[in-house]
Amino acid sequence: MILALAGGVGGARLAQGLVQALGPGELAIVVNVGDDFEHLGLHVSPDIDTVMYTLGGVQNPETGWGRAGETWNFLATLGAIGGDTWFRLGDSDLAVHVERTRRLHSGDPLSRITADFCRGFGIAHAVMPATDDRLRTFVETREGELAFQDYFVRRRCEPAVRGFRFEGAQDARASAPLAALAAPGAARIDGIVFCPSNPWLSVAPLLAVRELAALVDAPGIPVVAVSPIVGGDAVKGPAAKIMRELDLPVDVSGVVAHYGRRVDGWVIDERDRRFAGPIEGAGHRVTVTDTMMTSPGRAAGLARTVLALLDTLRAG
Amino acid sequence: MILALAGGVGGARLAQGLVQALGPGELAIVVNVGDDFEHLGLHVSPDIDTVMYTLGGVQNPETGWGRAGETWNFLATLGAIGGDTWFRLGDSDLAVHVERTRRLHSGDPLSRITADFCRGFGIAHAVMPATDDRLRTFVETREGELAFQDYFVRRRCEPAVRGFRFEGAQDARASAPLAALAAPGAARIDGIVFCPSNPWLSVAPLLAVRELAALVDAPGIPVVAVSPIVGGDAVKGPAAKIMRELDLPVDVSGVVAHYGRRVDGWVIDERDRRFAGPIEGAGHRVTVTDTMMTSPGRAAGLARTVLALLDTLRAG
Repeated sequence: MILALAGGVGGARLAQGLVQALGPGELAIVVNVGDDFEHLGLHVSPDIDTVMYTLGGVQNPETGWGRAGETWNFLATLGAIGGDTWFRLGDSDLAVHVERTRRLHSGDPLSRITADFCRGFGIAHAVMPATDDRLRTFVETREGELAFQDYFVRRRCEPAVRGFRFEGAQDARASAPLAALAAPGAARIDGIVFCPSNPWLSVAPLLAVRELAALVDAPGIPVVAVSPIVGGDAVKGPAAKIMRELDLPVDVSGVVAHYGRRVDGWVIDERDRRFAGPIEGAGHRVTVTDTMMTSPGRAAGLARTVLALLDTLRAG
Repeated sequence: MILALAGGVGGARLAQGLVQALGPGELAIVVNVGDDFEHLGLHVSPDIDTVMYTLGGVQNPETGWGRAGETWNFLATLGAIGGDTWFRLGDSDLAVHVERTRRLHSGDPLSRITADFCRGFGIAHAVMPATDDRLRTFVETREGELAFQDYFVRRRCEPAVRGFRFEGAQDARASAPLAALAAPGAARIDGIVFCPSNPWLSVAPLLAVRELAALVDAPGIPVVAVSPIVGGDAVKGPAAKIMRELDLPVDVSGVVAHYGRRVDGWVIDERDRRFAGPIEGAGHRVTVTDTMMTSPGRAAGLARTVLALLDTLRAG
């Protein structure tokens, strides 16, 4: 059993590779909920939906979020009657927010709702939120603290970042299916994968769930990370900008230093080959490969490389 | 100032005629909320929306409800993830339910929300719910009591009707704009129009609001009704079926008897000319005309006939 820790787009792409390489009983995809928020009275789970749409084959490949062939009639009418349109909700997309909200209000945990929705999208592998409890990412900026979506969507990541706060993390328990995977007597966890998601905005709120951090830090479970920084920039999103604002070196070494001993093996891009030596010198195993997941086939190839590195680490 | 009491389709059509005949300061359309219900956690106001879409020129002329050119991607996805799809919510239509629900939860009264939405749809005339309070129609049937939409949509009006209950009517106050129209010092109400809406399902829950019934029964305000029964059948909807089930004569005389002294003047269809004499004999004024509102122009013509009868009644 392999656990993959995923945020949005980059996480979803590697997850898409992993499901091609592993059977449904061999993989669990644990998804960030720090980006979740209430909008128009609806509970939106952007990262869960990106993973779900990608694995379900209905994602919009151009934006990385939302659905292919989406229509926008809801939003057009919402604008006409004076509603908030800064967060773009497509017509098809809206169904998961409305039904999720209804079920949450009726008392269903997010993990059960997510499992049911994924079944509806024909997904055989387990996709689960890190926690069923409320956990929300806040971004500390030079302009004050912003709720995640206010920072990410409304302000387009413009305010300079100083730090992060994961509201609710102290009390957040592992989601029911994640707790079952970690329970004594469950199938052995053979490895953990940090997908190439933003280390501060996507992976940090996952690791803020203490039971998940404990799994990551457990001796005997190798952890492999795929660098989200390639050639001195993020493949997608504000990771590089955030690293600059936090006075970190904007290259693979900055991410390696950030995760430290939590990660045993690194998969880095060919363009960053010069970092392989120093990372190995710091005590990690390194695989250098083309990490650009420009197609599902390439994502599957990267997934196999990740799994091979986990095998190597397990073999000692 | 003329008050028009409206349910769904028939009410919306006559309202469309009245707005062509009267200026914005001369007409208020008071709409039934007994059909309102909570669905998928959303507050749906079917009659308000039918009136709003019709006056806004975006209604679906074929179904009588919903919007023209509607898309159904929300519902398709909702079905795929196991949600309830028996009540058909279109993508554009959904915006008013989501935003109305959000604003109701934030404490805005339904009447203010309705006024804002109507402005968004370019409607100059006042459209208002009968009440801002909770008032819900329940239908007593041979199979037990059913919430209105369970009877009307889910069961397609099949269960035989025995009676009606308007939950919340005892405590329902007139909506804020309706109370303002009825207040001492407001512009004089020159007449009240019962649109050709279902007398039991649409007009009865309007009259269940005591302040509105008091206006209807006030001496000096003439009341004109347009018969929803033409040629022994309802123009649309289950009115005739309900009359049979309640052992009423299924013709104009049954509706005239139902409203009794509340209505001063009747507008009936040419096909029911033979009822004009008996209705006049019972003390009402009667105008016989073509009441089929098959176009906005015909609706305007019917509206002018209604207003002329109100003039006649006012002149005594």
